[in-house]
Amino acid sequence: MKITKLNDSSIANILDQLLKRSPSSYHQFEKSVQEIIDQVREGGDSALFDYTARFDGILLDASSVLVSQEEIEEAYRKVDPALLDVIRKSIANIRAFHEKQRQKSWFDADHPGVILGQRVTALERVGVYVPGGRAAYPSSVLMNVIPARVAGVPDIVMTTPPDMEGKVYAPTLVAAKEAGVSRIYKLGGAQAVAALAFGTETIPKVDKIVGPGNIYVALAKKAVFGYVSIDSIAGPSEVMALVDQSCNPRYVAADLLSQAEHDPMASAILVTDDERVAKEVIRWEDYFTEKLARREIIRKSLEDYGYVLLAENMDQAIACVNAIAPEHLEIVTRDPWESLTRIQNAGAIFLGSYSSEPIGDYLAGPNHVLPTNGTARFFSALSVDDFIKKSSVISYSKEALRGVYQDVARFAEAEGLTGHANSVRVRFEEDEENVELT
Amino acid sequence: MKITKLNDSSIANILDQLLKRSPSSYHQFEKSVQEIIDQVREGGDSALFDYTARFDGILLDASSVLVSQEEIEEAYRKVDPALLDVIRKSIANIRAFHEKQRQKSWFDADHPGVILGQRVTALERVGVYVPGGRAAYPSSVLMNVIPARVAGVPDIVMTTPPDMEGKVYAPTLVAAKEAGVSRIYKLGGAQAVAALAFGTETIPKVDKIVGPGNIYVALAKKAVFGYVSIDSIAGPSEVMALVDQSCNPRYVAADLLSQAEHDPMASAILVTDDERVAKEVIRWEDYFTEKLARREIIRKSLEDYGYVLLAENMDQAIACVNAIAPEHLEIVTRDPWESLTRIQNAGAIFLGSYSSEPIGDYLAGPNHVLPTNGTARFFSALSVDDFIKKSSVISYSKEALRGVYQDVARFAEAEGLTGHANSVRVRFEEDEENVELT
Repeated sequence: MKITKLNDSSIANILDQLLKRSPSSYHQFEKSVQEIIDQVREGGDSALFDYTARFDGILLDASSVLVSQEEIEEAYRKVDPALLDVIRKSIANIRAFHEKQRQKSWFDADHPGVILGQRVTALERVGVYVPGGRAAYPSSVLMNVIPARVAGVPDIVMTTPPDMEGKVYAPTLVAAKEAGVSRIYKLGGAQAVAALAFGTETIPKVDKIVGPGNIYVALAKKAVFGYVSIDSIAGPSEVMALVDQSCNPRYVAADLLSQAEHDPMASAILVTDDERVAKEVIRWEDYFTEKLARREIIRKSLEDYGYVLLAENMDQAIACVNAIAPEHLEIVTRDPWESLTRIQNAGAIFLGSYSSEPIGDYLAGPNHVLPTNGTARFFSALSVDDFIKKSSVISYSKEALRGVYQDVARFAEAEGLTGHANSVRVRFEEDEENVELT
Repeated sequence: MKITKLNDSSIANILDQLLKRSPSSYHQFEKSVQEIIDQVREGGDSALFDYTARFDGILLDASSVLVSQEEIEEAYRKVDPALLDVIRKSIANIRAFHEKQRQKSWFDADHPGVILGQRVTALERVGVYVPGGRAAYPSSVLMNVIPARVAGVPDIVMTTPPDMEGKVYAPTLVAAKEAGVSRIYKLGGAQAVAALAFGTETIPKVDKIVGPGNIYVALAKKAVFGYVSIDSIAGPSEVMALVDQSCNPRYVAADLLSQAEHDPMASAILVTDDERVAKEVIRWEDYFTEKLARREIIRKSLEDYGYVLLAENMDQAIACVNAIAPEHLEIVTRDPWESLTRIQNAGAIFLGSYSSEPIGDYLAGPNHVLPTNGTARFFSALSVDDFIKKSSVISYSKEALRGVYQDVARFAEAEGLTGHANSVRVRFEEDEENVELT
């Protein structure tokens, strides 16, 4: 790692480099993904099971596609009771945090004869995609399922590709069961997304699909958007640490590496006004990298997407954070709460020396599904909001409408929409024929 | 219009027919839209003004692209003062309703040493697309701009294609000014969307693009989604009326036509358990259609996408509403509030005989930008929520982290992420070299 002096052009270069990781750059796979979707939409179970046999090497049918009660019990026997205990603590915290996000329906009756409101209802059925193999993270199951549960979604189904023996990773099954998933299907890839979006004889159509996946899954979600809702398309993980000389460089380095280890495309960025801190963080990064199991991934990530940025002052450092809009931001400054007030764009913000980013991944309670690739400028963490929708409610009495109908008609006529004007006029202005017929 | 008996297969047929109107069915234009986007992204102003000359027949440059103060003043002189008065009443109502949607940042400090929170911040810059020509609806300007203002977005820019003389429709300018738009650019089409998404020398990059447009605009918004946020892709308007024998068929017919007049692809659907009502509504539809200026559009809309559905009972009628998930729903039953409790899916719900749908389009206050094409199952009206984002905030003290760090490490290790485990361990478990270096 080398130190980069921060200026406008270095920020622009970093943004360009980070954006290369966007799923939008994978047009070349879109055609094959669309074909899978069309086939499953058309052919239902038969196409779905064909693709599963071809891509995952597993023969399934309408009954074996569903994870059985026996398999779930077997998973509970396999999982370390200490891990189960942590999963339950984590669920309690995630639930407590998300409960605070619940929104209420509201009405007002501020004007005579007029009631206006906004009604909140939960989605009816949600599909959670969970990757298989080494990317099977039980924590991710919790983070995707619990907000849906808290929102009140009555039916949460999950799909995840099984291993070569047709089994799902035991901690994933246990996490799903503990979090409150209704049914689990042994399906993965674009074909699973298509089945959730359009339904098959066996797989029920859902209203929204959430959860991470490989590039095929990401493109499939993008392709079915509009037929169903989706969460935002997750890019590789990012962490940025905004620190001054008050920080402990050893802690900061360890936290940066914890995100670098996710993926060769993950990005870990330090920004500071203190050159000594910058050097120390690099030294500790080198030190820890050697000791960590995923050192190859970490080295590649740091080489391509890791930065140590030296700002002229903290104002410039903060401007850099806001320009990059990182998924995770650690603030380790003399007064992190003061710094917080100057941050515009970041998915999750960790304050002070002991708010190590991984407590957010696993245990604190806020969601770890966060906007990546600069989208924290406009997107938010996955939340209860993702699993509800709102309907406006409008009720006018005859007298209330009488008071405004001419305004409505005037506005409508100015837009050339005489049918709109007619619809309010008919309630108060009768013509002869109207009188006869009503 | 003929009466259709309601059953599962008639519902399925209607859904299929309505979905044909989805912008997702216009793959053939995607390539040319993508080319426009790529050119503007690459070439900036030069490409943008080239396309504007080619498609709109207007020669613009970096200064004339901006609507001037003189043009705004001229627009005020042109607009009927009575219309301006209605626009101002409408703004007051829209603002009052949307003020109630504002969400607060919150924090909790329920556990020693732990602060968790959710911080709400407004987007920094939003672009509002407003169609030109006959589809220039000032009411739509209000509905797109005011929620952004209420959310606290400091910079709201608007683009709209000018007419052949390079002028923007006066009521559109006045509505924009009254609603609080910062700057208005004379740009339309996919090139305007591209300019907003990526920025040019003249047009600033925005965080989110909202507003309706033709199929090129819709596809361009879809293509830039991820680089910026967008509102949902609007399809043609829909209204559904759920009525029983207590309704006034004349009113209901007038309301159905008010949406049918929008577009040949608009859809107006009656569902009732009363055959006499069904017949009367058809009779009144025929009667009003003859009298309305947009009768050709109405006839085509009713022919292709209009339905009069006769249910066996109100339960079946309500199930039909929930399956179709209409953009607008009028409930004119004996007890509309009771019926409301049984509605799962609808964008905006109008209760009783005097809540004529057009009051929602113009004056009541709730947003008229609503989910179409069955997406009310999972999408909501445009709202203040669209112009904010939320950042999670996590602060752990040393003692608080000490209490959970082993749980975090255990969960991380179960997922094979030793870098995550390391990052919490380093705070409490020192090795010799650590002691030396920190």
